[in-house]
Amino acid sequence: MNKSTIYWGDVNKYLHDVIANLDCEQIFLLVDENTQRHCLPHLDLREFHVIKIPSGEAHKNIETCQAIWANLLDKKATRKALLINLGGGVIGDMGAFCAASFKRGIYFINIPTTLLAMVDASIGGKTGVDFMNQKNMIGLFVNPIATIIDPIFLQTLPTRHIQSGKAEMLKHGLIYNLQHFQHIQLEGIPDLDQIKESVRIKKYFVEADPFDRNLRQSLNFGHTIGHAIESTALSKDEDLLHGEAVGKGMMVELKLSTLYGGLDKKEADGYIDKLTEFFGETKYSEQDLKEWIEWASNDKKNESNQLSFSLLNQGGKVENNIKLSLKDILQIL
Amino acid sequence: MNKSTIYWGDVNKYLHDVIANLDCEQIFLLVDENTQRHCLPHLDLREFHVIKIPSGEAHKNIETCQAIWANLLDKKATRKALLINLGGGVIGDMGAFCAASFKRGIYFINIPTTLLAMVDASIGGKTGVDFMNQKNMIGLFVNPIATIIDPIFLQTLPTRHIQSGKAEMLKHGLIYNLQHFQHIQLEGIPDLDQIKESVRIKKYFVEADPFDRNLRQSLNFGHTIGHAIESTALSKDEDLLHGEAVGKGMMVELKLSTLYGGLDKKEADGYIDKLTEFFGETKYSEQDLKEWIEWASNDKKNESNQLSFSLLNQGGKVENNIKLSLKDILQIL
Repeated sequence: MNKSTIYWGDVNKYLHDVIANLDCEQIFLLVDENTQRHCLPHLDLREFHVIKIPSGEAHKNIETCQAIWANLLDKKATRKALLINLGGGVIGDMGAFCAASFKRGIYFINIPTTLLAMVDASIGGKTGVDFMNQKNMIGLFVNPIATIIDPIFLQTLPTRHIQSGKAEMLKHGLIYNLQHFQHIQLEGIPDLDQIKESVRIKKYFVEADPFDRNLRQSLNFGHTIGHAIESTALSKDEDLLHGEAVGKGMMVELKLSTLYGGLDKKEADGYIDKLTEFFGETKYSEQDLKEWIEWASNDKKNESNQLSFSLLNQGGKVENNIKLSLKDILQIL
Repeated sequence: MNKSTIYWGDVNKYLHDVIANLDCEQIFLLVDENTQRHCLPHLDLREFHVIKIPSGEAHKNIETCQAIWANLLDKKATRKALLINLGGGVIGDMGAFCAASFKRGIYFINIPTTLLAMVDASIGGKTGVDFMNQKNMIGLFVNPIATIIDPIFLQTLPTRHIQSGKAEMLKHGLIYNLQHFQHIQLEGIPDLDQIKESVRIKKYFVEADPFDRNLRQSLNFGHTIGHAIESTALSKDEDLLHGEAVGKGMMVELKLSTLYGGLDKKEADGYIDKLTEFFGETKYSEQDLKEWIEWASNDKKNESNQLSFSLLNQGGKVENNIKLSLKDILQIL
């Protein structure tokens, strides 16, 4: 995968520096109605075309890609055009895929504007869109030429979205650095050092395994069930943020970790208690579990009839590729 | 770009060898109605799913990609699935793009079944689909794990498609090896050595410049106008093969070469005479030229208001990046 540079703070300085060193011929800025209103005013840019798409995971699909490509084509974007993705994970993932596949690849820069995108989606080159209600089915591994992380954008981010971002930070703590987990506060915006620690942990796993074949799968903790909860909600038009689904997914997978990962039950309960403060109690019936497993069995992480999990052995230590059948999973009830 | 291996002849031997060395979990075979009928019977494969799409450039689009991805998803293709693209340039370009973007990339093998695909599309990693009547607007640079070229498939190929493939072979001769140009016969199927020589020439340019930034653009000779003729025909539902459009494009660009590339007029007329035998006389009015230039100005090879051409200085020698305005181009009338 191509290399990428992360710049911290002062979005305008770094944006100008990067553009000055690029032989780009036009600049396009991908926004949604939220980032157009709250984030675009922070940017000091001249001569650019705005491409606006509707916000939300429900629009992260091939139809929206076609609208983006059509916009680029209408404005006669050349192979030396630059697309700046200003937004959360949806804008970042979809904008990156559109840029990488337009005329076989134009330049792109990611400016994550949500906590979730800063600590998760913007790192690691996973790009793409949902397809047939399945998360990220169509996409590529490709890095932007630069990622600029400026906490200024968090000031206007709704609390629910701050909490959604904390889900991935809590996960980083659980799989690699328990102190980091313990430091994440229920209230307020995480400070820059905490954000950097999450990015450091994510980068550690990504750089060890860029194409997600073994070690990187540690980052899937909470996500086998989390993605299934999210896909189920998406198919029913329910309003559920990615981090909220992952928070619930982690609670289920902590239970599974006590059965199949060797995690101490009391230790697990402590983590579940903290996650419950953030994401509410997670209840599920046999029917809920069966519905989620049906979704998950078509998730890309599944490689046979069983489901593959990354589960905790203990706080800060994860074991990958634990295969469980539906019957195994139902044991947590 | 990832490396790729070309195997010559004996499709079943090499297909089995490649698959035996791969940890693939399912095999999918992409065909159209023609390759299903004429080419699939040559393959000795067990346990595979057929994905069938309608033949022709008109179906090389995102809608057909969605049908392919839906098929893979329905059959629960994992990240270790293999897609074998059995067909011409449309199947190869589109199948490669679909494989490279499904679950962020599954294995794929190209088995070109047309002369055009053998000597052109199957070499060089350009994949993709048309968008808004523009050729190859959406796509990637990505290579198959293997390309198997077996002339057995040419035996059932219609004459028009053989001639279409010869257009690119003639181009290879004109830009790099005049003897190769002179050896291509109007009648019959080119022999294996001629096919290998065309592949050698194409590989020379591709390996010197994989991402098409300078030297590789030599291969665009005949294609600035050729693609415009093809796009115009596509928008009008006219039946025109790629090589037929390129044959006509070369005739126009040979004229341009005499004005802007320094090609001797008498030498050019000799080449045009030979191309006319293959692709008929190419007549054009001012209106035709204007219509083509309008299409070409949105082609990905254009990087400003002027059009970029690769033109001949002499037989076997090409000069890239010659920028011409509409006014310049109309001088050939």
